[in-house]
Amino acid sequence: MNYKMMGRFNGWILLVEAVFMIPALLISLFQGERAAWLSFLFSIGVLLCLSAILFLFSRNATRDFYAREGLICVGSSWLLMSAVGCLPFVLSGAIPNYIDALFEMVSGFTTTGASIITDLNPIPRGILYWRSFSHWLGGMGVLVFLLAIVPVSGQSEGYTMHLLRAESPGPDVGKLVPRMRQTAAVLYLCYVALSVLNLIFLLIGGMPLFDAVCTMFGTAGTGGFGVRNDSLAGYSPYLQTVTAVFMLLFGINFSCYYLLLLRQFRSVIRDEELRLYGGVVLGSVVLIAWNIYSIYGNLADTLRHSFFQVSSIITTTGFATTDFDLWPSFSKAILMILMVFGACAGSTGGGLKFARVLLLFKALRRNMSQILHPNKVKLIRVNGKPVDEKIVANTNAYFFAYIVIIVISILLISFDGFSITTNLTAVLACFNNIGPGLDAVGPTCNFSGFSLFSKLILTLDMLAGRLEIFPILVLLNPSAWKRG
Amino acid sequence: MNYKMMGRFNGWILLVEAVFMIPALLISLFQGERAAWLSFLFSIGVLLCLSAILFLFSRNATRDFYAREGLICVGSSWLLMSAVGCLPFVLSGAIPNYIDALFEMVSGFTTTGASIITDLNPIPRGILYWRSFSHWLGGMGVLVFLLAIVPVSGQSEGYTMHLLRAESPGPDVGKLVPRMRQTAAVLYLCYVALSVLNLIFLLIGGMPLFDAVCTMFGTAGTGGFGVRNDSLAGYSPYLQTVTAVFMLLFGINFSCYYLLLLRQFRSVIRDEELRLYGGVVLGSVVLIAWNIYSIYGNLADTLRHSFFQVSSIITTTGFATTDFDLWPSFSKAILMILMVFGACAGSTGGGLKFARVLLLFKALRRNMSQILHPNKVKLIRVNGKPVDEKIVANTNAYFFAYIVIIVISILLISFDGFSITTNLTAVLACFNNIGPGLDAVGPTCNFSGFSLFSKLILTLDMLAGRLEIFPILVLLNPSAWKRG
Repeated sequence: MNYKMMGRFNGWILLVEAVFMIPALLISLFQGERAAWLSFLFSIGVLLCLSAILFLFSRNATRDFYAREGLICVGSSWLLMSAVGCLPFVLSGAIPNYIDALFEMVSGFTTTGASIITDLNPIPRGILYWRSFSHWLGGMGVLVFLLAIVPVSGQSEGYTMHLLRAESPGPDVGKLVPRMRQTAAVLYLCYVALSVLNLIFLLIGGMPLFDAVCTMFGTAGTGGFGVRNDSLAGYSPYLQTVTAVFMLLFGINFSCYYLLLLRQFRSVIRDEELRLYGGVVLGSVVLIAWNIYSIYGNLADTLRHSFFQVSSIITTTGFATTDFDLWPSFSKAILMILMVFGACAGSTGGGLKFARVLLLFKALRRNMSQILHPNKVKLIRVNGKPVDEKIVANTNAYFFAYIVIIVISILLISFDGFSITTNLTAVLACFNNIGPGLDAVGPTCNFSGFSLFSKLILTLDMLAGRLEIFPILVLLNPSAWKRG
Repeated sequence: MNYKMMGRFNGWILLVEAVFMIPALLISLFQGERAAWLSFLFSIGVLLCLSAILFLFSRNATRDFYAREGLICVGSSWLLMSAVGCLPFVLSGAIPNYIDALFEMVSGFTTTGASIITDLNPIPRGILYWRSFSHWLGGMGVLVFLLAIVPVSGQSEGYTMHLLRAESPGPDVGKLVPRMRQTAAVLYLCYVALSVLNLIFLLIGGMPLFDAVCTMFGTAGTGGFGVRNDSLAGYSPYLQTVTAVFMLLFGINFSCYYLLLLRQFRSVIRDEELRLYGGVVLGSVVLIAWNIYSIYGNLADTLRHSFFQVSSIITTTGFATTDFDLWPSFSKAILMILMVFGACAGSTGGGLKFARVLLLFKALRRNMSQILHPNKVKLIRVNGKPVDEKIVANTNAYFFAYIVIIVISILLISFDGFSITTNLTAVLACFNNIGPGLDAVGPTCNFSGFSLFSKLILTLDMLAGRLEIFPILVLLNPSAWKRG
């Protein structure tokens, strides 16, 4: 196990975090939030010290770096980044309890958006900014960022591949351009461009600059932290619709945008995952609108709320314009299913990912056909290309692990005595990085009622969801650390 | 597609059903239940006529009989058997609505035990007998019975294999003895012997003969229809404990009993599925007892209720001695997980089956190890023997289909507006052939509140659960009918 190289990556990540904390420090200074800027200053100091220690430790790192190192490196760096990143919450007094602060920070980085803050009004602006910015950084992945812009010494194609594989969502990571590092850069460029476009549209609609920046962070990372207690309900229908559209755009596989830049329109339009995603969105919006029409009474409001909530849940963002916990059972059932689907692979969204759902359905269809015709051998094809059987097996294992983690988490948090709906949707909302669930964790409530134990379980769920289970499983499995 | 041979099997099945209806007819005659015995007489007539028509149609049947024929034959015979078997319910006036009666009959044959009858007191005894007997017949499988005792003309090893595979629960059907037909006979002998033993134990405890016979049917088939409104709560602790123990015994893979007869004790004790089953039962009993101790206040009652309910749910029987819907969330969460597990493969129980859970865990472990060591090739072994990769792939597909059916069913029945807990546990309880769920379908409630549409969905779920999905999927898939 190459601890030194893992140390070096972790050192780089803490350094990047320290740099990204500077804007939050400046906002606090500018707003005269003394406790906040002092706590940011202190945290930046801690980050720099830790980073320096890690760099010292990791001198003379060897170059052996395999899948195992990649997984553990990603898991440990996300934990470390959150453990230190939440210090400003505690020190500024915004969230006095450390476990609560850790929950909030992990919720930010994993783009979950589940909160334990009951009232946002007394929270300093610098803290609100940092909370929302964590969505943006976590959305595309901090290691992806690192690999895209920082020349980690001696960085080879091997490292990059293993790290990107471990951090990026979806059953498989393809190279867009011949080198992985350039692929990461292309992804980040698309991400920045789309984020700026989103910000412009929000500002045109008259949203205040601070709100617009934070809302953009929450939308781009498909996170869902807002700066107001009523999420997006208080903004104009224009701003809500802009946000709904951009949530959907950030839920699409970013390689589609790269293909658009290359003018390969046909491959984008024929992308099976994108078609499924579009179809499910359209179907859900229509069904929910039909089901909730009687609540809002006019087609415009009905469609706006239906479209916004579908887009918010399917992309695992978690913004709300209305209390969908009051909707009829049928609409709530649809939203619960969308929670599981999640967005597309290679997007900033969470959940199972449409690419996996597609693969699982194709594997089921193949199995049916093999029962009926035992002697036919059939490959699974996506977008016309045969899929490696290893990826099919991996997706099956992923799906089983996904269900097992949900079941065990529900069991563990049920000690708190909440209803089954609360426990089920709390786990679904955290594990799929959505944010709000139903009942006691519905869009007008939050996670502050859970015990510290349950909050830790849900924190692990958020990390396992964002990093797609395996890095966290490897991290929790001592035998993986030992061997070699 | 060999329609003639499928017709012949269906004819035999209706004939068997007619013969088995005679005891119910006699009980009704003996009890002077005029409407009931007339309705049984009429139904037997219908069965005989249909059977004769099918035999006439199926003269000169060819011998080509493959997996597809086996699946469709099993699916269609279960539907037909239920569609005619429920006639006495309707004609006697016990359940006036045909859809309700069909639900009740399918619930019987699939050993679910979910009921739409709100009060059992006015129901004629002959009807109660028929309702409970359907559990016994459905438990081991009517086709298994047919193959074990009836010399269906020209019966070859091929037919038997395809039919047994399609009707028997579990990821794979092994031969106990060289010929499939003798295997079926061995299984039925064990089943009858264990049933008689159960009956004797109940009679020793002073249970009235009629109650004892019906309770034995419900226990042996892991069905759960009772003859009293309070299920088993009114019987003595001895009778409850006897039933709890026998439920567990009927949830064990019947090949274990055959091995016991052959004095292969070591292979039974080392059976991985049996060990997992025993461990989960023990763990659940202890955890629930610890959680509910404060409700009952003394260890004896606590352990009795905990053991009975765990045994009843894990074997998918569904008898109750207490209203577990009033238990704390943690205990309810455990019961919900047990609902999914189900019993062992090759038993009369439903659910996912421990053999599958074991395989899925082993596949997940293999996947983890292959991520860490990509170049190692590893076989999955159960009880020391390598498992065919086709069975692993089949189990993965089964698990995905299992979750998809649950999700779609919840969506479809959510139109009725019940709570999420009700909808979730109603589907789990029907699909896993358990019976009672939680909330509005808890042990003191029943399924009468659902709309006819939802009852039909749940009826299909019960059949899909008992026949393990694929026969019903093939039946619902027109293209499987066409080809060939």
